[in-house]
Amino acid sequence: MKLLRYGEAGAEKPGLLDAAGQIRDLSAHSTDIAGAVLTPEGLARLAALDPDSLPRVEGTPRLGPCVGAIGKMVCVGLNYADHAAEAGMAIPPEPILFFKATSAICGPNDDIRIPRGAQKTDWEVELGIVIGKPASYVDEARAMEHVAGYCVVNDVSEREFQIERAGQWVKGKSADTFGPTGPWMVTADEIADPQALAMWLEVDGHRYQDGSTATMVYGVRHLVSYISRFMSLQPGDIISTGTPPGVGMGQTPPVFLRAGQQIACGVEGLGTQRQSTIAWDA
Amino acid sequence: MKLLRYGEAGAEKPGLLDAAGQIRDLSAHSTDIAGAVLTPEGLARLAALDPDSLPRVEGTPRLGPCVGAIGKMVCVGLNYADHAAEAGMAIPPEPILFFKATSAICGPNDDIRIPRGAQKTDWEVELGIVIGKPASYVDEARAMEHVAGYCVVNDVSEREFQIERAGQWVKGKSADTFGPTGPWMVTADEIADPQALAMWLEVDGHRYQDGSTATMVYGVRHLVSYISRFMSLQPGDIISTGTPPGVGMGQTPPVFLRAGQQIACGVEGLGTQRQSTIAWDA
Repeated sequence: MKLLRYGEAGAEKPGLLDAAGQIRDLSAHSTDIAGAVLTPEGLARLAALDPDSLPRVEGTPRLGPCVGAIGKMVCVGLNYADHAAEAGMAIPPEPILFFKATSAICGPNDDIRIPRGAQKTDWEVELGIVIGKPASYVDEARAMEHVAGYCVVNDVSEREFQIERAGQWVKGKSADTFGPTGPWMVTADEIADPQALAMWLEVDGHRYQDGSTATMVYGVRHLVSYISRFMSLQPGDIISTGTPPGVGMGQTPPVFLRAGQQIACGVEGLGTQRQSTIAWDA
Repeated sequence: MKLLRYGEAGAEKPGLLDAAGQIRDLSAHSTDIAGAVLTPEGLARLAALDPDSLPRVEGTPRLGPCVGAIGKMVCVGLNYADHAAEAGMAIPPEPILFFKATSAICGPNDDIRIPRGAQKTDWEVELGIVIGKPASYVDEARAMEHVAGYCVVNDVSEREFQIERAGQWVKGKSADTFGPTGPWMVTADEIADPQALAMWLEVDGHRYQDGSTATMVYGVRHLVSYISRFMSLQPGDIISTGTPPGVGMGQTPPVFLRAGQQIACGVEGLGTQRQSTIAWDA
């Protein structure tokens, strides 16, 4: 299934993308795509529905983040060997974790606002893991049972705030609109191998990122297990698994976003995001 | 007002502590102490109630975290000059920020579970700021308008996970039960000067921390303004403002928590927390 949320920000309704690419309204069956709906039981209930029986959603509504009420977005740093090299950093001996503020999460096609005074706003296309079952000290062998599905995340980052402003990356990861998430969550049963997905990102038509989840240092199975040793993962939490090479900071010379640009990015099988960059006070 | 949440974990009811120290049930007037209830309008509605008209809550129920549905807990690192010295670190040129997972937040008197394999679990009594009004690029002059109130936070920390496990402190700050919050939130009108509050923490009756918010490097007003430049603050978010000297890591030799100990801590005017430490699998 492809599950999504559509409508005005803060008032999104749950929806399903049918095989023909038509949005169907799930409001009669679910209040949101969030929490208990993402558990194996919750997803089984939705999977039992006949998409043709659901109301068609006419027009092209705004899409919200594909998961609602996200409890936490756990991000993994330097998780592609080539990206670590371009960032001038060593491959970490174990996963580097940080959080993105949940207030930064937005729809996949919402405008990205460049923060006031920001000079180094950058992009990072990533594979997002949506948690579907509470996880605490989960073995790798059972880690995949806790994955509800996958989605695209653009882990937008302001490099000066992240790296040059007195410690801890969160400062450059958390501005409002720095977390486009979606367009939809694809349930895990439809992704045969999460470690073999092409991923890409373009700015104004120039392809900067062109990678694959195959080159992740720490894969999905390991990350779910590893993170669950340091904190519990809950249904509706998202793990954003790091970005492949090709971020702006890694260009020679570095390239950063300015207002008025168009970003497109995607992960194989998970859809495409399209954002315009705008000035904060636009 | 002193606002609190009482009852079983995950099913807490809203309450108010009256002048006699009696819990009164707010269920008829509010679904939770969270979100919109914490705005100036929401608090004004509760302040208009006569506490004597509210049902008494009999017995001594468990207290939950004093704020529900906390969107994010923003923590400030090395924010007391003497604590930075004991940690062997320089006073930061601007506030260091990190997040504690919201899944770590628990009631003020809940047991603290020592994670599996943890050898360096430590304590940190802190002043928590409860946000009551959305804040984005807020000037210091108006920062206090965004503060709903204050509470005690014990920013429990596993130092090996925080410092010795490949970058970013969040890894040592986020285990379940690592965020006792409460016992109650005291509204800002009742705290004449948040920079003049004594604070203390004892383990098994030995006083390790005995400080004052007067020695904060960056005060409440500055922190709200500063953080709002990097992310929006929302009603129900909490800023935990750092800890004074006396953490376990700073002792000679260092002292860390083990199962079977009793912690008590408090901040002047904001009440006392009491936790027992237990093994993770107890």
